[in-house]
Amino acid sequence: MRLAELSRATEVPPATIKWYLREGLLPKGEPTARNQAQYDDVHVRRLRLIRALVDIGGLTTQEARAILTVVDDPDASIDEVVGAAHGALARVPDTDIDPAALTQVDRFLASRGWTVTPDSPARVELAGIVRAMAQLSPGQDPSDAALVAGLAPYADAIDQLAAAEVAELPHDVPRDVLVEQVVLGTVLAERLIGSLRRLAQESAFLSRYVAPSDTDS
Amino acid sequence: MRLAELSRATEVPPATIKWYLREGLLPKGEPTARNQAQYDDVHVRRLRLIRALVDIGGLTTQEARAILTVVDDPDASIDEVVGAAHGALARVPDTDIDPAALTQVDRFLASRGWTVTPDSPARVELAGIVRAMAQLSPGQDPSDAALVAGLAPYADAIDQLAAAEVAELPHDVPRDVLVEQVVLGTVLAERLIGSLRRLAQESAFLSRYVAPSDTDS
Repeated sequence: MRLAELSRATEVPPATIKWYLREGLLPKGEPTARNQAQYDDVHVRRLRLIRALVDIGGLTTQEARAILTVVDDPDASIDEVVGAAHGALARVPDTDIDPAALTQVDRFLASRGWTVTPDSPARVELAGIVRAMAQLSPGQDPSDAALVAGLAPYADAIDQLAAAEVAELPHDVPRDVLVEQVVLGTVLAERLIGSLRRLAQESAFLSRYVAPSDTDS
Repeated sequence: MRLAELSRATEVPPATIKWYLREGLLPKGEPTARNQAQYDDVHVRRLRLIRALVDIGGLTTQEARAILTVVDDPDASIDEVVGAAHGALARVPDTDIDPAALTQVDRFLASRGWTVTPDSPARVELAGIVRAMAQLSPGQDPSDAALVAGLAPYADAIDQLAAAEVAELPHDVPRDVLVEQVVLGTVLAERLIGSLRRLAQESAFLSRYVAPSDTDS
């Protein structure tokens, strides 16, 4: 198909497609005689993946490219693909991380039996979150045990989920299908969990704060 | 304290504090004789809240202000505060939402017994995610039953979590403390869940993909 058809098929404007081509996020089409190029289903699929990462995952074009570079490297292992997706998702502060918060996070990780590399971006991100929460809840017990207990409902839910997600990954599929599913499962599912949680919260709030006063009258 | 001390106490640069004052995110200080203003713990706390929403929650200054306006309105109900936080977190596309995806989401919500308002931003966001996932997994069963089954592990985990979170909200605290905890519990905990999930994933991947080959040799 030609560029205009690729645009119609994916609902991505031609100018955006051209920009992705220039920026190397989208592979070039097959050149044709009339100074045009032909595109195929690989381009449709890649465009949908880019839009999912950017529009839904909230990644910048640069962050999406960093992931796609690893996806397109046939020598990259699955955990390198996961690492690239995690690197794009983590919001790591520019400033130095409070060493006390990092130590607390490491004790929490050990308490869960979660083994991660020391340069894991999520580990640094979690330290920042733990520190902000402690600062904004001054009456809170600052001990490691209290942190482990406070995070337990979250970690229990996640433990269950992460095991199910890794177990569900297909084994007998080509590498390009597997890596794409890993990226989607990492980036899109993080937004999925966020939106489900807000829906469940909204429902729980409606029943707790609204329903009683509705029935009181 | 003076502005320089407020800056030291919060690690927020003076220019940023002045900008927040001009933009109305931070209440003005008490004017003093020498054309200066005095700030107190309320300002320290508010600055930490703003930085948490922006640096950790990933909100824009405008999105943070939209939440804080509702937080500061003594007549705003708790579910209005939650609604403001949810509105800032949802990534709702500019384009029209596929009505078929919205219908599927409504059937999923009904299957969970989750009641939300029709203009819930998370409902629209979820429809966009469901549509993107369907487009990128062409072999997938497109039925409502398959969607409900596919989302079940996520929804089960979230159900458990949302109920615990709403139940844990303090009852006998002043409104300003409660609304702040609601905002933090909504915005920061969404990032918390994301980072915990990535840590658990990293750990699960390391044990599945790395450990076996390490022990094979």
